[in-house]
Amino acid sequence: MNKLATLLLLLFLCHHGIVCNVNSAAMPQPSVDELWKSLLFNYSRLERPTFRGDPVTVEVSMYILDIPKVNIKTMSFEMDFYFRMRWHDDRLRCELFADLEYIDVPYKKEIWVPDLFFVNAQEVHNPNSNFLLRLYKDGRVLYSTRYVIRARSIMDFKNFPTDENMIRLDIESYAYTSDKMMIKWQSKQSLGLNSERITDFIIKNLTTRESVIHLSTGSYSRVYAQITLKRRGQLYIISAYLPLIVVVLMSWLSFWINPKLIILRLGLLVTLLLLAALCVLGFDTELPKLAYATSLSNWISLHFVFLSSALVEFMLIHMIWGRRSIQYLQEHEIEDKVEGETESTCQKFRNCLCGTSSRLDLASRVLFPGFYILFNIIYWVA
Amino acid sequence: MNKLATLLLLLFLCHHGIVCNVNSAAMPQPSVDELWKSLLFNYSRLERPTFRGDPVTVEVSMYILDIPKVNIKTMSFEMDFYFRMRWHDDRLRCELFADLEYIDVPYKKEIWVPDLFFVNAQEVHNPNSNFLLRLYKDGRVLYSTRYVIRARSIMDFKNFPTDENMIRLDIESYAYTSDKMMIKWQSKQSLGLNSERITDFIIKNLTTRESVIHLSTGSYSRVYAQITLKRRGQLYIISAYLPLIVVVLMSWLSFWINPKLIILRLGLLVTLLLLAALCVLGFDTELPKLAYATSLSNWISLHFVFLSSALVEFMLIHMIWGRRSIQYLQEHEIEDKVEGETESTCQKFRNCLCGTSSRLDLASRVLFPGFYILFNIIYWVA
Amino acid sequence: MNKLATLLLLLFLCHHGIVCNVNSAAMPQPSVDELWKSLLFNYSRLERPTFRGDPVTVEVSMYILDIPKVNIKTMSFEMDFYFRMRWHDDRLRCELFADLEYIDVPYKKEIWVPDLFFVNAQEVHNPNSNFLLRLYKDGRVLYSTRYVIRARSIMDFKNFPTDENMIRLDIESYAYTSDKMMIKWQSKQSLGLNSERITDFIIKNLTTRESVIHLSTGSYSRVYAQITLKRRGQLYIISAYLPLIVVVLMSWLSFWINPKLIILRLGLLVTLLLLAALCVLGFDTELPKLAYATSLSNWISLHFVFLSSALVEFMLIHMIWGRRSIQYLQEHEIEDKVEGETESTCQKFRNCLCGTSSRLDLASRVLFPGFYILFNIIYWVA
Amino acid sequence: MNKLATLLLLLFLCHHGIVCNVNSAAMPQPSVDELWKSLLFNYSRLERPTFRGDPVTVEVSMYILDIPKVNIKTMSFEMDFYFRMRWHDDRLRCELFADLEYIDVPYKKEIWVPDLFFVNAQEVHNPNSNFLLRLYKDGRVLYSTRYVIRARSIMDFKNFPTDENMIRLDIESYAYTSDKMMIKWQSKQSLGLNSERITDFIIKNLTTRESVIHLSTGSYSRVYAQITLKRRGQLYIISAYLPLIVVVLMSWLSFWINPKLIILRLGLLVTLLLLAALCVLGFDTELPKLAYATSLSNWISLHFVFLSSALVEFMLIHMIWGRRSIQYLQEHEIEDKVEGETESTCQKFRNCLCGTSSRLDLASRVLFPGFYILFNIIYWVA
Amino acid sequence: MNKLATLLLLLFLCHHGIVCNVNSAAMPQPSVDELWKSLLFNYSRLERPTFRGDPVTVEVSMYILDIPKVNIKTMSFEMDFYFRMRWHDDRLRCELFADLEYIDVPYKKEIWVPDLFFVNAQEVHNPNSNFLLRLYKDGRVLYSTRYVIRARSIMDFKNFPTDENMIRLDIESYAYTSDKMMIKWQSKQSLGLNSERITDFIIKNLTTRESVIHLSTGSYSRVYAQITLKRRGQLYIISAYLPLIVVVLMSWLSFWINPKLIILRLGLLVTLLLLAALCVLGFDTELPKLAYATSLSNWISLHFVFLSSALVEFMLIHMIWGRRSIQYLQEHEIEDKVEGETESTCQKFRNCLCGTSSRLDLASRVLFPGFYILFNIIYWVA
Repeated sequence: MNKLATLLLLLFLCHHGIVCNVNSAAMPQPSVDELWKSLLFNYSRLERPTFRGDPVTVEVSMYILDIPKVNIKTMSFEMDFYFRMRWHDDRLRCELFADLEYIDVPYKKEIWVPDLFFVNAQEVHNPNSNFLLRLYKDGRVLYSTRYVIRARSIMDFKNFPTDENMIRLDIESYAYTSDKMMIKWQSKQSLGLNSERITDFIIKNLTTRESVIHLSTGSYSRVYAQITLKRRGQLYIISAYLPLIVVVLMSWLSFWINPKLIILRLGLLVTLLLLAALCVLGFDTELPKLAYATSLSNWISLHFVFLSSALVEFMLIHMIWGRRSIQYLQEHEIEDKVEGETESTCQKFRNCLCGTSSRLDLASRVLFPGFYILFNIIYWVA
Repeated sequence: MNKLATLLLLLFLCHHGIVCNVNSAAMPQPSVDELWKSLLFNYSRLERPTFRGDPVTVEVSMYILDIPKVNIKTMSFEMDFYFRMRWHDDRLRCELFADLEYIDVPYKKEIWVPDLFFVNAQEVHNPNSNFLLRLYKDGRVLYSTRYVIRARSIMDFKNFPTDENMIRLDIESYAYTSDKMMIKWQSKQSLGLNSERITDFIIKNLTTRESVIHLSTGSYSRVYAQITLKRRGQLYIISAYLPLIVVVLMSWLSFWINPKLIILRLGLLVTLLLLAALCVLGFDTELPKLAYATSLSNWISLHFVFLSSALVEFMLIHMIWGRRSIQYLQEHEIEDKVEGETESTCQKFRNCLCGTSSRLDLASRVLFPGFYILFNIIYWVA
Repeated sequence: MNKLATLLLLLFLCHHGIVCNVNSAAMPQPSVDELWKSLLFNYSRLERPTFRGDPVTVEVSMYILDIPKVNIKTMSFEMDFYFRMRWHDDRLRCELFADLEYIDVPYKKEIWVPDLFFVNAQEVHNPNSNFLLRLYKDGRVLYSTRYVIRARSIMDFKNFPTDENMIRLDIESYAYTSDKMMIKWQSKQSLGLNSERITDFIIKNLTTRESVIHLSTGSYSRVYAQITLKRRGQLYIISAYLPLIVVVLMSWLSFWINPKLIILRLGLLVTLLLLAALCVLGFDTELPKLAYATSLSNWISLHFVFLSSALVEFMLIHMIWGRRSIQYLQEHEIEDKVEGETESTCQKFRNCLCGTSSRLDLASRVLFPGFYILFNIIYWVA
Repeated sequence: MNKLATLLLLLFLCHHGIVCNVNSAAMPQPSVDELWKSLLFNYSRLERPTFRGDPVTVEVSMYILDIPKVNIKTMSFEMDFYFRMRWHDDRLRCELFADLEYIDVPYKKEIWVPDLFFVNAQEVHNPNSNFLLRLYKDGRVLYSTRYVIRARSIMDFKNFPTDENMIRLDIESYAYTSDKMMIKWQSKQSLGLNSERITDFIIKNLTTRESVIHLSTGSYSRVYAQITLKRRGQLYIISAYLPLIVVVLMSWLSFWINPKLIILRLGLLVTLLLLAALCVLGFDTELPKLAYATSLSNWISLHFVFLSSALVEFMLIHMIWGRRSIQYLQEHEIEDKVEGETESTCQKFRNCLCGTSSRLDLASRVLFPGFYILFNIIYWVA
Repeated sequence: MNKLATLLLLLFLCHHGIVCNVNSAAMPQPSVDELWKSLLFNYSRLERPTFRGDPVTVEVSMYILDIPKVNIKTMSFEMDFYFRMRWHDDRLRCELFADLEYIDVPYKKEIWVPDLFFVNAQEVHNPNSNFLLRLYKDGRVLYSTRYVIRARSIMDFKNFPTDENMIRLDIESYAYTSDKMMIKWQSKQSLGLNSERITDFIIKNLTTRESVIHLSTGSYSRVYAQITLKRRGQLYIISAYLPLIVVVLMSWLSFWINPKLIILRLGLLVTLLLLAALCVLGFDTELPKLAYATSLSNWISLHFVFLSSALVEFMLIHMIWGRRSIQYLQEHEIEDKVEGETESTCQKFRNCLCGTSSRLDLASRVLFPGFYILFNIIYWVA
């Protein structure tokens, strides 16, 4: 009867893949599948490695492959990285396969794995669903996955086209409080980056930080990956700064044009103003809509001020002349009878011009470039 | 034969992981997996905790991590939050593990969990698929998940750039009527918010509400999370209000320009009108298309009215002069023969101007700023 | 030996959760899980309730929560609704639990459920994956789910900003022909709608319809949910109608301006034409691109016709004058020698003007508003 | 002992749902589930119906419900269709249920199903995940699913707004080479289409084609569904052709305007040019960006040529006059002293005008419409 | 009792589909399902084919069906391809089915399959979820899938509309280091491409490359698929180059226009400038925003320089004349009294013109085209 029982027992064990240690020792060379099954026998997936003991220490490291996009409108970034967790699980210690340093196991659902998550991530993908679960002889476990995420990070665009912002990824355990699990960066160099594919920014700094967060459900260990990015501003120099500078410089041509040639001078200024507006409209859709002025928006505003001032200056010449000529005309109305009105007004105009308005132009020829240089010094120094 | 039966029984129990209480007591220290399995033995997942009794009370609480977007075009918002449910399930009371306050279980499919849903949500995600299921010694259960949702909430944009809207998330049970399940906010403070990442709005108020909804399939308990957001209007002051103010102020320059300098005065007004139109076109794509006028659209319309009025005023001067001069010319046609037409007309023009039109300009210099200040007072007070 | 057999039998039954009726009667109070399992024992999921008999009658009802978007470009709409099916399955009749009206079961894969689908839906989601499956004592089954769908429905935009369109959702069985399953609306009121969140349309009508569709694989019962939506046209009145009306009214100012002031009159008309073009460009991207003219596009076209006509009228004055003066000059060439050409031409011009052109203006002052009023009456009545 | 063994055997068979033929015959009326299970007993899902024999013939048919979008920018189309496959699987022949023509089975994973795929599809959805698997008495199998796909098909836009393109869907087996599986269209009429919801195109032709494709992994049978679509060009006639025609016609007004009225004539032409540019800009974003000129882009280009020519003609008049007058002035410089320069120049100008320039205008009045009619005849005939 | 044991054993084996070799040999013709199950008996899925031995060699090949999009803004590309892996797994050697070259198996989860992934892919889809797993008699395995991916590849747009870029797909093993798995291209021709559907680019080159990558978790074998694409620049010639050339050529007309006709000459230049700006704005949204100037942006910039220069040249004529005439007027102020100011100034102007400004025009007529041809030679050669 014992024979039957043993047989049945064996069958059941076979059925569930449990190869008891006695049997496996008897076998000449157990396969990895059998080893894996023997490891899982009596393994309690609900218990973390150091159950009823100290918090488990999970060491993380990241290697950033790519930062495909930093969206300045939604203040979010996309990141493509390898994420690695290392911890120690004594229950998975397996001395049996002496010739192997470690085994790679493609099952993650059957053992305890830290439940880390990215607190500020809005979307998390693993494009090919690959992962690596490596069990070392001495019980160390390495779990690595590739993530393509989209996360939010508040940025400051006050110095917009030359801004330097820190994007941050927050990593935390979802269920295990800090007395059950501690997350640590593996080392100082555990945040790596492949800068090959990051063309829009200069990587200034990669820093790691660790802290503990207090929520209503308990205190949780949290680590931060911080990347400081300095925007390469050349794009904006080419497409925003340069055309506006050219337009402002061209607007000063008007000070050398005879104010009597109204159409010429007005035409020039209006054309430049519209070109500047079209130019701003052209790349404006790419820019963030913010509640505060950026360095670039200041630049644009001040160039519009310069352009408008040239227009106002021209208006002033004619406003002053207009008022004077009317006064003059009212005084000398009788004498005007003989000679043509146009001529006399024009003569007056010429006088006015040589007396007042052209002085305005002469002053502008010096003052406008002067203020512009001054403004530029202040802008580029500050 | 009994021996065989017992053995088989044991095998079957093992097979299904059922560790009967007698056996577990015999074991020195049962693992959490075994405890969990013993809890589920005889557990009826179809029955809610208080089956055949009072409604189950589910206490909810929310901690909002982020409101990444409030889309004013589709009247929807995105929200990233921790959602927690607390209830009591006596069947999960487990006195066995005396040294543990609670256990964390990563299986939610095997026990009864409230089937709450977000009534007005269009999309619901859980980026990392994390959740926390905590069983307390005394039968209390805590279930927490992180959601990234997109929900609709009707907003009122009548005061658009300074509007204050309440966004609301409706939470209800899908299958359990109010005599079977009651949803309650855990406490007054059970709606929390991390305002760190909300830059476009000021959080005015967080309120919670509870009610019962009547549908054709029964009455359901429903709770509401209400967040009152006040828009930070600075963006619109910088990009819409300021440029329009400047443009209107510049349009008044025209009242000082001699109306005879048609090209100058017209050029100024047309340029300003086109600049204003381009400026409005530039940020118009960001604004909601609504069936009613917003505070901002009123502002824009009225500035266009001011700009057009300056143009019309200029037209009027010339229309009046035109009619008068024609009358004059018809009367004095013979005398005109000798002197050049231009001169005489111009003289008339000058007279007309000093007599009528310039009076219009003189009036405009006072009336336009006056009405503008008046309009501004009304606009900003109301 | 019998004992062993019974034991084994019992074990197997336990294993598969089959609680035979004899046993369950013996037990004091069977749990719902056990009842459910006993119902499924011998249940044939492949057979519809009235297999080998009359067609099953599935009664549907819908409660529309929201219509977030009606996309006039792709002629599609989004809809968020509760969808309920009711049918009778005698095999699920369960008299055992006398104290319960019905039980809620969270498993739908194990029983027969109608395979209805939305024929014109392009995307179908169930945001929280909730559903309700309610088994009544007498065998009635209620299955309710929430769907967020995007479906296509051909609309007619001939009366565009005041159009009234019927959006239709077609519901059909995928596999069961009409001799196997009949779909019916539960009652006249089985199509409900929560109009709270529908701001762009007025709900005119909710109608239901039933029919049978013939395909190559058989005839299928189909039901339709039809919602007639009347667009709230205010948005278009504010952003399209009003500005164009203002622009056309302003264009008539030109008829009072002396045609000799070419720059003034031309400047006014050109500015108005460009403003109208910019204004149309501004909201044009929101409008459907259709192969036929809408009421709005007619309106826009006709306003451009009015604006262009004012320009053409002005050109005509100068073309007529131009031709006449040339004829005149050719006749009087010798006499012109003494007096300045400009003066004489101008005089002629004045004459021409008083003779011909101004007559055109005088006529236009009456005819343009006249035709405009006429056109408006026709447009708004038709 | 035999009794126990039989019992156990029975239990195991029950456990796996295998109802041996002997037993089922004994039962009065076997359920469809039992029939299904008996069919699957000994069914080898890995073997295609005619394993070790001739290729299986899979007959396909399609019924297109909708073509929601033909994206001319990405040269892709969306299609919503029922896809049906018919084949013969002798192993599924079931004579048992004599009263039933066929049974509908909602399990497709358990039997062999052809692994057809859409070669040029980029996205494949089945919105409600419905399918129909119908087993006929004689072993015929009908499998039908609804697909919403997005596929690419190279189109030719040389005749753009009146183009006629064939969109093609390629259907092939992924794993079975042509000596194992042949795909055929069921009949000539096996490609159907519901034209009710296709508003932008006229369906010219539906054709089917069969061929064999050679790849490095073997030769595969492939069938093609080809739909020839003729674009309804009315949209483009309304929004592109008509406004440009009007603009060109209006540009000819300038030939009747006295060239001395520079501002009037230039103003007209510039306004028309800008209006045409805005109009093209308005619908340009909807058009494909192609490496070759389309019929529409030719049309637009040529209208810009006509508009520019009118401008150049006007410039030429003044350039010729300018040169002549300068020559003239240099010759008669002394005589000019007395009379005003303007007058004399104008007289010269008048002469020049009557001599040369106006001749240009007179010619243009005939030549421009002439060439335009010619161009239109060529364009619309070719 | 042995009988029972044997029976039970048999049952268990049946239960798990394990047909021992002895039995299968006894059967006349085993089905493929049975063969497959017998192959999997004792198969260790965790061990790669050459466990404890040399690295497995995985030979890959790709056949690109389509490159639907090369996004120059995000520097990413979409690719639709068949991906094939070939390796040798002795454990799957099956001599039993002598009449079959190979069997196709639709299960990939049950055997060891290389865990290759696309390192730079952001999204990976398999539209129809098809794959092919072919087991050859001698143990060779062929695994083929279709992928639609979106991957990033850094491109250089310095020669933008005529640029030639290499897009690269990196393929690597996720878990197996190079001492465990080596990836190789099957042959030189193992990267194929169906160029039928690639219309925007000319395929210059398809190259393959193999290397080893060193990461902190070990060294990994990696292969590269490199496709060199040459953009077809015709689109840009039609929509950007040609209109700008026409505009610049037309701007030279102005040198033949009398500078006194300010409005004509200015009108022409301003119109051309605005048309060029609108034209650039029109296709600008399609272009990449880069931190460096592309060939196209250089072309555009230089055409704006040419257009602006023509405007500046015109301004210079009037600035020089303006200064001179003022000087002149101040000298001859008394003599001016008698004759009209306009005339005399005009005469001076004529003199100035014939003396200075027109010389500028005369020079420009030669210099502008000269420089333009020079610039074009440099641009097109370089």
